[in-house]
Amino acid sequence: AERELIAAVSGGGEGDANGGAGMSREAFRQAVVNTLERRLFYIPSFKIYRGVAGLYDYGPPGCAVKSNVLAFWRQHFVLEEDMLEVDCPSVTPEIVLKASGHVDKFTDLMVKDEKTGTCYRADHLLKDFCKEKLEKDLSLPVEKVTELRHILAVLDDLSSEELGAKIKEYGITAPDTKNLLSDPYPFNLMFQTSIGPSGLSPGYMRPETAQGIFVNFKDLYYYNGNKLPFAAAQIGQAFRNEISPRQGLLRVREFTLAEIEHFVDSEDKSHPKFGVVSNLEFLMFPREKQTSGEKATKLRLGEAVDKGIVNNQTLGYFIGRVYLFLTHLGIDKDRLRFRQHLANEMAHYACDCWDAEIESSYGWIECVGIADRSAYDLHAHTEKSGVSLVAHEKFPEPREVEKLVIAPVKKEIGLTFKGNQKKVVEALEAMSENEAIEMKSALESKGEVEFQVCTLGQNVTIKSNMLSISKEKKKEHQRVFTPSVIEPSFGIGRIIYCLFEHSFYMRPSKAGDEQLNVFSFPPLVAPIKCTVFPLVQNQQYEEVAQQISKALKTSGISHKIDITGTSIGKRYARTDELGVPFAVTVDSTTSVTIRERDSKDQIRVSVEEVASVVKEVTDGQSTWADVQWRYPAHSSFSADE
Amino acid sequence: AERELIAAVSGGGEGDANGGAGMSREAFRQAVVNTLERRLFYIPSFKIYRGVAGLYDYGPPGCAVKSNVLAFWRQHFVLEEDMLEVDCPSVTPEIVLKASGHVDKFTDLMVKDEKTGTCYRADHLLKDFCKEKLEKDLSLPVEKVTELRHILAVLDDLSSEELGAKIKEYGITAPDTKNLLSDPYPFNLMFQTSIGPSGLSPGYMRPETAQGIFVNFKDLYYYNGNKLPFAAAQIGQAFRNEISPRQGLLRVREFTLAEIEHFVDSEDKSHPKFGVVSNLEFLMFPREKQTSGEKATKLRLGEAVDKGIVNNQTLGYFIGRVYLFLTHLGIDKDRLRFRQHLANEMAHYACDCWDAEIESSYGWIECVGIADRSAYDLHAHTEKSGVSLVAHEKFPEPREVEKLVIAPVKKEIGLTFKGNQKKVVEALEAMSENEAIEMKSALESKGEVEFQVCTLGQNVTIKSNMLSISKEKKKEHQRVFTPSVIEPSFGIGRIIYCLFEHSFYMRPSKAGDEQLNVFSFPPLVAPIKCTVFPLVQNQQYEEVAQQISKALKTSGISHKIDITGTSIGKRYARTDELGVPFAVTVDSTTSVTIRERDSKDQIRVSVEEVASVVKEVTDGQSTWADVQWRYPAHSSFSADE
Repeated sequence: AERELIAAVSGGGEGDANGGAGMSREAFRQAVVNTLERRLFYIPSFKIYRGVAGLYDYGPPGCAVKSNVLAFWRQHFVLEEDMLEVDCPSVTPEIVLKASGHVDKFTDLMVKDEKTGTCYRADHLLKDFCKEKLEKDLSLPVEKVTELRHILAVLDDLSSEELGAKIKEYGITAPDTKNLLSDPYPFNLMFQTSIGPSGLSPGYMRPETAQGIFVNFKDLYYYNGNKLPFAAAQIGQAFRNEISPRQGLLRVREFTLAEIEHFVDSEDKSHPKFGVVSNLEFLMFPREKQTSGEKATKLRLGEAVDKGIVNNQTLGYFIGRVYLFLTHLGIDKDRLRFRQHLANEMAHYACDCWDAEIESSYGWIECVGIADRSAYDLHAHTEKSGVSLVAHEKFPEPREVEKLVIAPVKKEIGLTFKGNQKKVVEALEAMSENEAIEMKSALESKGEVEFQVCTLGQNVTIKSNMLSISKEKKKEHQRVFTPSVIEPSFGIGRIIYCLFEHSFYMRPSKAGDEQLNVFSFPPLVAPIKCTVFPLVQNQQYEEVAQQISKALKTSGISHKIDITGTSIGKRYARTDELGVPFAVTVDSTTSVTIRERDSKDQIRVSVEEVASVVKEVTDGQSTWADVQWRYPAHSSFSADE
Repeated sequence: AERELIAAVSGGGEGDANGGAGMSREAFRQAVVNTLERRLFYIPSFKIYRGVAGLYDYGPPGCAVKSNVLAFWRQHFVLEEDMLEVDCPSVTPEIVLKASGHVDKFTDLMVKDEKTGTCYRADHLLKDFCKEKLEKDLSLPVEKVTELRHILAVLDDLSSEELGAKIKEYGITAPDTKNLLSDPYPFNLMFQTSIGPSGLSPGYMRPETAQGIFVNFKDLYYYNGNKLPFAAAQIGQAFRNEISPRQGLLRVREFTLAEIEHFVDSEDKSHPKFGVVSNLEFLMFPREKQTSGEKATKLRLGEAVDKGIVNNQTLGYFIGRVYLFLTHLGIDKDRLRFRQHLANEMAHYACDCWDAEIESSYGWIECVGIADRSAYDLHAHTEKSGVSLVAHEKFPEPREVEKLVIAPVKKEIGLTFKGNQKKVVEALEAMSENEAIEMKSALESKGEVEFQVCTLGQNVTIKSNMLSISKEKKKEHQRVFTPSVIEPSFGIGRIIYCLFEHSFYMRPSKAGDEQLNVFSFPPLVAPIKCTVFPLVQNQQYEEVAQQISKALKTSGISHKIDITGTSIGKRYARTDELGVPFAVTVDSTTSVTIRERDSKDQIRVSVEEVASVVKEVTDGQSTWADVQWRYPAHSSFSADE
């Protein structure tokens, strides 16, 4: 459920993704990435060994930002919603990922350079070909333009055969060597390994954290007092052995996911706290708008749920909470939209699915997926493990219920379908009540009916002598059912990268001779909350700086002292580039100045108070405006040289 | 550096590891583990699929304890010491682990059941055999007893051949089938995988997090303003494909490590803050005491460093900080000792190494290793990558230095050593200044000298015509050197498990008819800080409980409301078993009681104040005694039924 959908359904302009500095997307991205790498937010992993594509380290400031984002995630979701957090291993035995479908279906189509063996993603090559053709070949006839555009639109839905045929038709060759390419074939994206010394227990590095929660459903349900709804959550590493990682920090082979599995009775998906978010208004991009070529528009969340655009309140509630989470971190609300999956994007079992997409220099990037996955996952593990993962609703009094009994007549089915008998029987027994009622009436009126057997991948004809569908009366003391699951899944690395782009801007130095970089992180996510500078190198000021540092440490505020003799302006510039929101300059032994990063405004505060003032504004108890009102402004000619 | 050394060097009695409840170690452990699993501190991973040996999930309370321990680790080490925290991937290309030595040497010796192929650790089988023999065969002659005891003592040092010979000699067979066993052979404990689709780039799941820091040394040194000393830190998953995991939660295949690499000039290992810890006194177990059969004794850390028992101040400083960390978490200081590695336990390059060992029902368990690894790791990566990982000390003025120049005469060496020429030359060139001076004088007096070439694993005879050692005068502007690294490495899961054992106790219920379990976690690590109980089920009390819950949430205090109609005594017992330190009982609409878990004392506090009081005592600003003094005691007959 983590497909890449960048700009496929565009809606965003190609031009200004950079907050209006008028640079091209690529130049803007280069400026951001240069700053990030120079200041060690990121480091290409194993750099001294020339690195490995798709693996990055978080250096000190990046690591601090990540910690802050995860701490806020815990606060905003786990603590606020009383979720059950778990922590499962990454090494996963094959059977679990067989059940989830990953062993069979977590693949990308790959082609190989027939001579060198170099591997490429088949869809990437076709996409690049179409894009280049459209951009560069201005003599292209209209029908060809339409054809190539159509391919780009349906790229994700092409089968292996269709992809292979197009690659042949267009004569696409290996990008580096121009050699011929093999036919596309599926490559499983999981890192495979072996558990234990025997070599007989295949395992994988998990591609998502969700399965660890599903397999624990029974224990977690018990832990929650056998009550629904409840949510479990997990933060952890996930792995994806990409064929050829592109898009730098957005497409990596190991990444941190934060996932929530909210288990709910499929017959009641209302949410008691929906009212808290129902008045939020933000960019939404429902399916219909996408297919009709319109743009995302602002919608009130309550309205979207009322009108059935969003399937249910619980899904809507999480969409609202995700919106609050992202904007609180500093994601620009005008470059954030919630896009509904098109019917062909969604898994067959899903009810509804919305992606929080953030606009970056790469286009619109899926950063959070919020899916109503129905009862699929628990069903799959029940079937594979033989352990029934269900919930119970005890009735206050026993209820008389009419139950539909579907009884296939195996002999007749066997005669007609031979070796496929078992699959047909299973499909019939798995019908929902509504499907069975429909079939019953169709059989009564027409004597036969077309019936889709997914496991056979075809329709078969069912005749009335092949099964009986009847209603029986029974006394029931409880309802036993498989809960539905609503899954918000956060790609933490992607969110952080988009946050870096949204926070980055440049402003001229005071002398006007250079452009200085600034990350305008809110204090919540800033890697360091505060710096302490003695204005000039002297022992008295340094002692004051140490005293302030000690007070900040006691308050748990991450900070740095810079006692180098560099000009104060240069020191400000250095910390602006790390996104440090406040700088304390020691220019006397009794009071000091606090400077705010974006406004460059300064206030004067006594040495004793400075730690508590910084704590106030970084904890979010007060805003900068609040404290500006309480303390005298400080103006200085020389400050921002 | 994570060897298992349980009770090999005993010193602890076999009896009471349980705080004096008089149970056997095994019964005590069973009581702890039962409680941990029943209350979902741990869950065997993939339980519905019958699990995988050596993989465990942290369930909700376990996960919360882990978060709390890691948050405190960050506070106590990273923030307090201004460390540079990084976050590197687990997937690691082969070359990095070739350089570190893990590909070649991170192995255990394994034997296979010759018929079934089942694998066992060779040393485990021999250990089990010796132990059982010593325990059960009372007719064993004295010399045999001595022999078996000797084997147990040197077990970790036995070579593959020696192990194999003993297994043959004693007729040890496969435990389950009694089949013959293969000869022992090394099994690499890393989980292997393949990076990318080609199958040509082998990779491993990292066995420790340290390598990610070493390969980044150059960037981190630059980030730190090209200044030493500095420390980098990393928290993350590490992996170890155990042959046959035993010892439950202590010996697992995936675990969280928290590692610090403190880089320091090898010529100055003093520490400016050593004075802060030098007066700490705790159990230390120096090498000499172990070999002479004595016990660990209390030593003042300052004295241990002054007397050279601990190699240097920086190593000593970290030992002190680790002591503070562990005891702050709730580890019993009387069941914590720092044991120095014996000479044969230490890597050849290490200067000194101390393990923080915690006594548990399994014996003394290594939970933190604190090693002075000299310049080994940076040297190894410099050599393999060709990127020089060094530090510079710029001199204020250029210095005239006498430099020792070692010039091997390759022709002579080649004639004598033929194919080994290169290794001999390299070893000669790698001599330290002192070694070279010694060799020079030996050659001058004796004409030849024995010289150990590690890479050949033998001594060779060097004659005076094979090299010249001379002093030259040079002007130097800086000193270039490879820093030493001091590495405290924390096995977080082991610390948490030992913490569970040290926190667990049982006390009789009020009626005296059953034993109730309690975890006496300090508020810092308690998974939930506080519970809120309406005394009886009524709307007014529930509203007050909700109001208190809201205030606790705002203060960021994790808590649970329990509005079930269960007796208040049962609800207390339930939360005692989760280690919740405070319980708020709503028995009026104006004031409530707060009950402390271990004393069961209660105070009465107004509804408005309750959240801030709980915050005070959980944040550690006040102790329970402080608030007990400020608020009236509440006594109730019915409270602890």
